[in-house]
Amino acid sequence: MLGIIRVLTHDDPHFVEEHGRLIHQAYAIASVSRCIPDQRKGIYDAESQALAIPKIVALGQALEAEGCNALFLSCAADPGLAALRQAVNLPVISAGSACASVAALLKRPVAVMGIGAEAPLPFKQLLGAAVSYARPEGVLNTTDLLTAQGRESALACADGLYRQGAEVIAFSCTGFSTIALADSIRQHLGKIAIDAVSAAGLFISQLAPSR
Amino acid sequence: MLGIIRVLTHDDPHFVEEHGRLIHQAYAIASVSRCIPDQRKGIYDAESQALAIPKIVALGQALEAEGCNALFLSCAADPGLAALRQAVNLPVISAGSACASVAALLKRPVAVMGIGAEAPLPFKQLLGAAVSYARPEGVLNTTDLLTAQGRESALACADGLYRQGAEVIAFSCTGFSTIALADSIRQHLGKIAIDAVSAAGLFISQLAPSR
Repeated sequence: MLGIIRVLTHDDPHFVEEHGRLIHQAYAIASVSRCIPDQRKGIYDAESQALAIPKIVALGQALEAEGCNALFLSCAADPGLAALRQAVNLPVISAGSACASVAALLKRPVAVMGIGAEAPLPFKQLLGAAVSYARPEGVLNTTDLLTAQGRESALACADGLYRQGAEVIAFSCTGFSTIALADSIRQHLGKIAIDAVSAAGLFISQLAPSR
Repeated sequence: MLGIIRVLTHDDPHFVEEHGRLIHQAYAIASVSRCIPDQRKGIYDAESQALAIPKIVALGQALEAEGCNALFLSCAADPGLAALRQAVNLPVISAGSACASVAALLKRPVAVMGIGAEAPLPFKQLLGAAVSYARPEGVLNTTDLLTAQGRESALACADGLYRQGAEVIAFSCTGFSTIALADSIRQHLGKIAIDAVSAAGLFISQLAPSR
C-alpha cells in the first residue's frame, strides 16, 4: 500500500485521492491519501513551508505505522523530503525530484512548466539553475487550469517551449496531471512531456511493487 | 550502500564493478558488486536461468545481511526478480524493467535494441509484445561491441530504428552502457536513448541510498 501525502488541508475526499487515482490507473498501485492538518492554503511561502514540514514528517510516520510500504510526497517543491526520508524506513518518492530526475536522465534540451513564478528548487537542482521555465498565460493557480481557456493556455505554453528548442518538458505542477496535459501534448504536438504524478508512479512501480 | 548482483561468474574485479562505476559517475552512489558462483557463461538459455535464480536470491539475501539498503539486479532479462523481491526486505531494481518502464512512461514511438535474438521479456511486458526490436549487425555478444566496428554497427543500428520512426530507443543490453552508446546517439544523432544501467541508477538515486 502506497501512502500519499497531500501538502494541504482539504475536505473533499475526491480531490484528496485524485493523485492516487491517476497512479492506480497507470500502474495498478493501491494507495491511501492523507492531508496535513490546518493548512487550507497549502504551502505558498517560506513560513507556510516551515509550518508544514513537521506535519509532513508526522504524517509519513503515521502512514508507515499503518503499514504503507512506500510514501509519495505529492508536491513539486519536495517540501521536507530529506527530513521525511530520515524519519521513516520506507522508500519516499516526491513529485518534484521524481519528475525532474526522469527529465535529467534523457539528457536532451529540457524546459520546465509550472504555475509559480519560477521553477521549484528540485528542478533547478537536477536540471540546472538556468533551466528554461514558463507558466501558462492567465494561469495563477490550479483551478485556473480546469477551464477550457486554462487548458488552451497550457497547451499553447508548451507549444511555445518546444518551438524555442525544448525537446522535453517537465511539469512542476500536479494540476497538469488533472487535466491530462501530457496526453494532450502527445496527441496535438507529438512531443515528450514528463508528468509529475506519473513520474512518481513510475518510481513506486519499481521500488515497492505491491507484494 | 547499493548491492549489485552480476548474473555471471567473472574473476576480473574491474569488469565486475563496471556497472557500479557507471552508477557512481552519474549519481554518486556507492556500491558493492558480486557475481553469482559457477556460471562462467552467465545466463543464456532456460536451463542456465533456472540454475541461476536460487543463486541470485541467495546473493541478494547475503548483500542484505551485509547492510545494503537497495539491490540492483544487473540483467536486462530480470531473471528471478519476483523471487528476489519476495526474499529480501529491500527495494530491488532490475536493469530490464528499469529501462523499459522509463521508455514506457514517455508514451512515444519506441524501439528496443539489444544483442539477443529478440527483446527480453520485461521489454515485451512493458512496451508491448510487438515492440520494434533490432540488434547491431555482426554483434553477437558484448565483446563484439568493444571494437571500432562494433561501435559503428551499434550507432548505425540505432540510426536505422530512428529512421523507421522510433523517437526513443531502450537498450536491452548493458554492453551499450560500457561503450556509452546513449551519449554517442545524443551527440551524433540528437535523439533520445534510455541506457539500462543509467535507468537503474535513476531509481536508486531517489531512494536516498547514501544513509
